[in-house]
Amino acid sequence: MTPFPEDPAMTYPTVRLRPKAEARAIRHGFPWVYADELVTDRRTQALAPGALAVLEDAERRSLGLVTVNTGSKIIARMLDRDPDAVIDETWFAVRLTRALALRERLFDRPFYRLVHAEADGLPGIVIDRFGAAAVIQPNAAWAEQHLPALAAALAEVTGVSVIVKNGTGRSRGLEGLAEETLVLRGALDGPVTVEMNGACYMADLTGGQKTGLFYDQRPNHAFAARLARGARVLDVFSHVGGFALAALAGGAASALAVDASAPALALAERGAEAGGMADRFQTRQGDAFATLEALGAEGAQFDLVICDPPAFAPSKPALEAGLRAYERIARLAAPLVSPGGFLGLCSCSHAADLAAFRNASARGIGRGGRRGQLIHTGFAGPDHPILPQLAESGYLKALFFRLDG
Amino acid sequence: MTPFPEDPAMTYPTVRLRPKAEARAIRHGFPWVYADELVTDRRTQALAPGALAVLEDAERRSLGLVTVNTGSKIIARMLDRDPDAVIDETWFAVRLTRALALRERLFDRPFYRLVHAEADGLPGIVIDRFGAAAVIQPNAAWAEQHLPALAAALAEVTGVSVIVKNGTGRSRGLEGLAEETLVLRGALDGPVTVEMNGACYMADLTGGQKTGLFYDQRPNHAFAARLARGARVLDVFSHVGGFALAALAGGAASALAVDASAPALALAERGAEAGGMADRFQTRQGDAFATLEALGAEGAQFDLVICDPPAFAPSKPALEAGLRAYERIARLAAPLVSPGGFLGLCSCSHAADLAAFRNASARGIGRGGRRGQLIHTGFAGPDHPILPQLAESGYLKALFFRLDG
Repeated sequence: MTPFPEDPAMTYPTVRLRPKAEARAIRHGFPWVYADELVTDRRTQALAPGALAVLEDAERRSLGLVTVNTGSKIIARMLDRDPDAVIDETWFAVRLTRALALRERLFDRPFYRLVHAEADGLPGIVIDRFGAAAVIQPNAAWAEQHLPALAAALAEVTGVSVIVKNGTGRSRGLEGLAEETLVLRGALDGPVTVEMNGACYMADLTGGQKTGLFYDQRPNHAFAARLARGARVLDVFSHVGGFALAALAGGAASALAVDASAPALALAERGAEAGGMADRFQTRQGDAFATLEALGAEGAQFDLVICDPPAFAPSKPALEAGLRAYERIARLAAPLVSPGGFLGLCSCSHAADLAAFRNASARGIGRGGRRGQLIHTGFAGPDHPILPQLAESGYLKALFFRLDG
Repeated sequence: MTPFPEDPAMTYPTVRLRPKAEARAIRHGFPWVYADELVTDRRTQALAPGALAVLEDAERRSLGLVTVNTGSKIIARMLDRDPDAVIDETWFAVRLTRALALRERLFDRPFYRLVHAEADGLPGIVIDRFGAAAVIQPNAAWAEQHLPALAAALAEVTGVSVIVKNGTGRSRGLEGLAEETLVLRGALDGPVTVEMNGACYMADLTGGQKTGLFYDQRPNHAFAARLARGARVLDVFSHVGGFALAALAGGAASALAVDASAPALALAERGAEAGGMADRFQTRQGDAFATLEALGAEGAQFDLVICDPPAFAPSKPALEAGLRAYERIARLAAPLVSPGGFLGLCSCSHAADLAAFRNASARGIGRGGRRGQLIHTGFAGPDHPILPQLAESGYLKALFFRLDG
């Protein structure tokens, strides 16, 4: 079945928790072992990145099968509570089937994040599905090594005919993996059309940011669309038109998408055309901060402004500067909102928690000379499940304010 | 115009912040003054509960018009940044018009929370609208005193013909107000039919809990409905059928509603009949904990279980016991969920923040012998805006878990 079968008779090496490490949390579902919790003797140090091993507690009781990467701060990730599990195509198929069942309950059509790493039992693996195509992000060494079995299981379980490996992104660097994006199976003929919230998006599965489209914002796009009827909409950091096209589908009078990437805006324009809304859609290529300042100087007014920037605070050292950037976005955007209009502010920063991001946003709105009610707080959609034990990995936050009249 | 006009020429008394009090926060939109922040000389002490006064900072600069209640921990609440504002029907009409504009943008039909207290500029006042009827909860002394002007403005701005005063609830006691529920205008002929998420609910505007229906759960009902197709559903603390009827509208195979209140369940049954789903709907009257235990003993299984209990931790002293109660609910409910099924857990406790409630829920699920992915975190709907400065008043949390197979 699988092109690279594991030998079921093989014995995995053993790694062991230090006496003071928290075996209880791991028994209760915490999926990670940090470097300072593991006995890193010469034998463990010699394990190749991504190696499989049986994790034991300090009393030598087995906790399960893990993948080890001694070069990573997260030195071991739990793969299976069964220490004898064999990681092959069948093993992947069981997990993918379970992941698929959730998405098929949630969505009418096969466009969603199919696998969201730890919470779907596949640490470090992200898979987005675009109808008959799927994009795998193997963000951990073990995933890179088992990619053939994963891809085979993915084709079998979902029936997709095109599989792309997207090997970009910050996490791969931390795991010591090189950047590499290629088509593993089938062939792609230009961008894929994705319908979401009544709009058409164009997803470039091989050349775009991340896997080509940000499914995580789907419920927040939908909320923005509810506010959009008859509105003049400004979508800053629009990428391929995320909020702008959803707002137009929701009845916006006009939408202006701002992004630094000309290729992303070109895809947004193609999406607007495909959705029959090109006559209400405009783009403006440029730096977001500079464009917000320019629009302010022009005295431009919009009934709905949304800012969905990249992660300004991806990690703790970047937190303070990141929060200042979020505050600045809010300060520059607030004056562009018409009296009684709406301002949506998003953060996909792990390090900025909800309260910190909300405070920075409220401060920026105040410094922009406005007051607001907070009418909605949204997170990533349900195709982005999280483990309760890693709930802080709920990285995406979207705040919708209604500003004073 | 208003039956009890204020004299525009009258001079309001003055109250003053102590030197160390945080005038800056108030200038930036914080709407409350705590008792220890105000100079409470004999003149201030003599103010009747609900009296209007001009708030000054320690340097005698005006901060705005407040309502004072020297018997309350929140000794003053900001009504208007303009210290000369006259609180009359016109003043209420301006605020109601602004509140109405938000709801009319959000909802196709006039069934919603129209006023959510501080965030809508009306501290201590809650108004729910049910088509041609509205229920006012005056939860602060000033609101009780200005009720005639408020009711007149409400009729004028919205056109409602029936206005109910619901004077129940914990906050009124803290303000020294007596319980009293009566019809102020028009007449009611039995419960009102409310359509939400495709289901029919029966709201008893004079005899029910709070204002008769919990609009705040609307988006969480909608999320549950997405999970419900073909499912066996259990709705514990169902009240008038909140989650159960929405799930049936979403295609549930069957729903069992559990509540301690026979009158609430009778309304749920009438709602099921009105929605043509009575054949799939059952009720079970009794204590929720005892019923969960009994269902467990019976080996009952459901594909979607939702528990929406009353506030177990309404205040800080109740927090620890409250979190234990939430954990117990999760522990008793988790074993009733079929493999791969869903568990929705809600908290409307101010004192239990999101992280504390999530931890208690995850612990309970674990002690119930299950593991789960957290697929959705929801709050109150957008007709329940909050001031960013009081974001902790985001009291309602709904967590949806998918449990292991």
